[in-house]
Order: sequence, then C-alpha cells, then structure tokens
Amino acid sequence: MIKVAINAYGTIGRRVADAIKLQKDMELLGIVKRTPDYMAQVAMQRGINIYASDQQTKVKLQQAGLKVEGTLDELLQLADIVVDASPEKGEENKPMYEKAGKKVVFQGGEEHSIAGTSFVAQCNYDEAIGKKYVRVVSCNTTALCRVLKTVDDAAGIEQAIATLVRRATDPNDPKKGPIDSVVPDPVQLPSHHAEDVKTVLHNINLTTMAVKVPTTHMHLHALAIKLREPDAEKVVEGFDKAPRIVLLESREGYSSTSGIMDFARELGRPRGDLYEVAVWKDSIRVSNGWLYLFMAIHQEAIVVPENVDCIRAMLGTVDSKTSIEMTNRSLALIK
Amino acid sequence: MIKVAINAYGTIGRRVADAIKLQKDMELLGIVKRTPDYMAQVAMQRGINIYASDQQTKVKLQQAGLKVEGTLDELLQLADIVVDASPEKGEENKPMYEKAGKKVVFQGGEEHSIAGTSFVAQCNYDEAIGKKYVRVVSCNTTALCRVLKTVDDAAGIEQAIATLVRRATDPNDPKKGPIDSVVPDPVQLPSHHAEDVKTVLHNINLTTMAVKVPTTHMHLHALAIKLREPDAEKVVEGFDKAPRIVLLESREGYSSTSGIMDFARELGRPRGDLYEVAVWKDSIRVSNGWLYLFMAIHQEAIVVPENVDCIRAMLGTVDSKTSIEMTNRSLALIK
Repeated sequence: MIKVAINAYGTIGRRVADAIKLQKDMELLGIVKRTPDYMAQVAMQRGINIYASDQQTKVKLQQAGLKVEGTLDELLQLADIVVDASPEKGEENKPMYEKAGKKVVFQGGEEHSIAGTSFVAQCNYDEAIGKKYVRVVSCNTTALCRVLKTVDDAAGIEQAIATLVRRATDPNDPKKGPIDSVVPDPVQLPSHHAEDVKTVLHNINLTTMAVKVPTTHMHLHALAIKLREPDAEKVVEGFDKAPRIVLLESREGYSSTSGIMDFARELGRPRGDLYEVAVWKDSIRVSNGWLYLFMAIHQEAIVVPENVDCIRAMLGTVDSKTSIEMTNRSLALIK
Repeated sequence: MIKVAINAYGTIGRRVADAIKLQKDMELLGIVKRTPDYMAQVAMQRGINIYASDQQTKVKLQQAGLKVEGTLDELLQLADIVVDASPEKGEENKPMYEKAGKKVVFQGGEEHSIAGTSFVAQCNYDEAIGKKYVRVVSCNTTALCRVLKTVDDAAGIEQAIATLVRRATDPNDPKKGPIDSVVPDPVQLPSHHAEDVKTVLHNINLTTMAVKVPTTHMHLHALAIKLREPDAEKVVEGFDKAPRIVLLESREGYSSTSGIMDFARELGRPRGDLYEVAVWKDSIRVSNGWLYLFMAIHQEAIVVPENVDCIRAMLGTVDSKTSIEMTNRSLALIK
C-alpha cells in the first residue's frame, strides 16, 4: 500500500483525497487543514484523518470542534508520498518536504522548475517513473495535452492555435471578478499556456490566447489545428479510443458549458465532477487542411486522475496503461 | 439636404437618428415607433418627430401621451431614403419600401440577399454608389472588415482565424441568457461570420468560431492572421492611419471590455458609445509569420457611422474619403 498525505484540502486536495480512498493500492493517511471551514467539518464527518499545518493551528482547529490527529510534520513522517495541493505555496513548502525526504506531487499553479518534470498520464507517464518531485500540470494544460497528443497521434499536428475562454473563479470563491466583462488575461500575446503544454509535449507547435469571462464552471477552448493528414474521421477515431476524452453532441442537450456540468451531476459523481475533457463532436470540422473544434474542461476535476497516476509513476509500481485503467475504473470514467 | 426616415427606434435606430441630426447634409424627418416606451418618451422630449407604424399604433401612442406626426406610410412619402433599423424584419418591410419606391439601408441582422450589396465604409464604399438597397453589415462583421482590410493593406493576409467571444445580450434586454455559462454559438464550425465578412471583403481567407458569454457590453475577438510580410510595425502603422480603429494599451487602464466601455463614457459621448474598433496595442504580436491580437467591439454603436456613410454612397453625393471625414468629424471620432 502506498501511503499518501495530502497537504491542503481545498478545490484540488479534497477531490484527490476521495480519489485516493478509491484506489486499492493506496492508503489516505490524512489531509492537512489551516482553517476550520465546512470542508474540514465534512471531512471529519466522513472519517478522514485531519492534521493541522502547525501546533498553533492544531489548537484553533480543536477549539472549533475538529478532531485533529497531529501536525503536518508528524503526518510527513508516516507518508511515502505527499500531494501538495496548496494554493501556489509549493515553493514555500518544498524545503520542509526535502527535510523529511519525501516524494512530492506538485500542482499546476507552480512553475515547471519546482519539479523539473511535468506530467499528464496519457502523454508522458514514463518521464515521472522513480522521480522525487513531479508537477501535475494545470487544468487547461492537462486538457490541451490530452487532446493535442491524441490529434497528433491520429493525424499529425503541424501547427495549433488555441483560444482559451476561461471561467473567472471557482464556485467557492466569489471574491474574484469579472462581472459583465471579458478580460484578456494576459493582454500580451501569446499566453503562457502554450509554453506550459511544451513541458509535457516537448515538440508541439502551439500558440495560445486566453480571456477570462464571468462564469464559475468550465473553461472552453476553441482550437484550430493544421494537420499533416487532414482527415476528420481519423481524429474522431482517435478521440473515441483515447482515455479521458469524451465526445458529446449538442443535439443531445450539451449546448453549453453549464449543460455539460449538469450532465456530470446527472452521472451521480461526487461533487458533480467531470474528469474527462468534453469535446463537442459536432463542432469537429476539417477544412483546407485545418481541424477546428470546441472543447470544455471542468477546472476543479480534470487533474484528479492525473494526481493518482502520478503517484504510481513516481513509486514505479505499475506501468502507464495499468495505472490509467486502475484509475479510470475506480472513478467510473466514461468508456 | 438628404431627407432621412428611420423605421424602428431601438438599439440601432435611436443611435443612427442622433448621428443623422449631426450631419449638415441630412435632415432627420422622423422615426417610427410601435410601442410607447421610454425611448419614445425621450425622443419626444428631444423634439424628434415620431411616426406610428400604422393607424392602430398611432392611437395607442397618442393615448400614452406621445405627439405623433403621422404613420410610416406618410413618412415614407416624404423621404429620400429609409434606414430600416427593425429587429430583423427587413424582409417583411421590403415590399412596402418597394411600393413607395424608396432607397433603403438595411442592417446586418438581414441576409446579404435582401440588398445584394453589403457595406463597410472604409472597405467598399464605391460598391454602394447609386444602389437602391444596401445592407450595413453586423457589428462583428463590421469590426472584422475594418481590421482585416487594414492588416491586408499593410502586410498582406494569407489566412485568418478569428475566435469571437460575444456579449450575450444588450443592456436593455435582460430576457436572454446565458448566466454562468459559455455557449458555443453555433456548435457546428465554422460560424457564419466568415461568410458574412466575404460579402464585403470578397477574397479573404477567413475562418470564424463564436461563443456567447454572460456579458452585456462589447464583443471580444482573438485573431490569428498569417501575413505575407510578417512585420508588426507595418500593422501598427496601418492601424494608426486607418479610420475607426483605435489602439489602446492595457497599462493605461484598458484591461477589459468593461474598462473600454468606461473610457467611452469618459469621452462624454452620447450613450457612452464607442464607434471605433478597439485594438489592444500591447496584444499585437508577430511570431513565426503569424500576427496575433485582441480587439473589442461596442455592439450597439459600431455600425452608426457606417449607416451615415451608406446613405451618402447610395445618394452618390460625395466620395468615400469625404463622407468618412464628414461623419468622423460630426461624431468626434478619435484621430
């Protein structure tokens, strides 16, 4: 059994925690909290071991009625590997992990340099094998990697241009904007997303442009891809076979990002999560050598299976195909 | 004096009416109303002649306290030209105009076939000279035509790909969605906008993709353009010289579509309108032969100067350069 600790229990941490609990080869030792919020309360009710980030926090959590098993330092001693799900505090936390001598999965909010290896399971699992530090890339990058790798394998990519229409904030963070506004983010082109994809797909010719819009659910990408073999059927076949990509047709009710999120709730998944990249099948069009398509990404959930696979790769327990299948089965992924 | 009638007084009609009043060579005979709403009340207070769409409506408007000069039929007899600013009712109205033997400017909500000639002043003014029916194209198409024509003249366009992030509804129509959702519109690619641009720029190699987002102000376009002469300076020079395109830099506070709208209000223009296409200067980037940029379009206002110029072209009174300069001066356009 791989003993897993999760540092921070927010948007990503709580989802990865649940996924870890579903793996037969893993044990969730506990999660680390800094504040006694509803997430901590629900975790306690569900029997998840809670650790405090330090002694002072331990007192604060206990005063709020939480059962606290110990501190982060104590949790680290017990673990084989840590998932750092902190809000971009990986660099700050890293010396502590180094001192404890533990392997760490970092998240996509960190720079590539924090680990030197960036990871998307179906693209470059083998690069993470045996590594001490690996970074699971961000939601947008994960989606682009899955889809571009699949298209490249199926029909060869000469060049790709992606426009990212990003959700402004997550449902649990209403402080951020914009409201009634579209924000080029960044204005200066290209956006960093293309460079981030290259940390996984090293030779892809990709340019990205990104804007933020007033939504809380899903990013939408509009892709234009120059193909070596401009054949829409090959692309559709590729998507059909690839893991973690689901083809949806608008006539079945998938007419918007919120419609797709409602579909995920209908599936009965925890928190209504969609781990797959949703590609609109009826948007797929090849014209004059270029492929065009729309896809949507549930920003809170897409990296959950990647975190699970990343742990197995770093521990070197099973190969890529086996791990992806184990994870997919445990999370009931489509196909 | 060119005697102008405006049929319908909504988002476009009221703006064109005010612009007509500012032209030294035009006379606004009156506008046509169907409902006694606040737009009609304000028009009356401002001394604009109100006509009713028919006898029955005349009674309804009068009962609401409006001063009504007559009916649409009577107005048509007095006019040299009609601006049909109806909400996509041009086809329905056309037989009436034909019967009256009047020239008509239609709007971009209609099909190209309604007129056979589509119009953007700085692109194809001469095509409209002497014509009986001309269609001013939609806000998105007008913006794309202005910018693509300018880029083509400056650096030569081999291919262009545009992603349109469209505002969901106008501020005075809260019935439409989406809320907290991004809607590919249409899902099936490409969108019709590229074909519409070709009614003005006949030989452009353009593909468009469009989504709707929960905003009420401005469309935002992300453009990728393969250039014959990949030179960012030539493009910037082109924009600097072109009419009705304004270059804005994010460091001056133009960080979003709502920021640009606030700038337009600061200019003191009627209704806070921005007639120019706003191109983010610091988004302009040329890389590997491709030009990338962001631009924003005030959907309620951009076609106003086009309607004014279209009238002069159809009456054949002055040439393109003269008309554009007259219109720009009257509306206090930037540069």
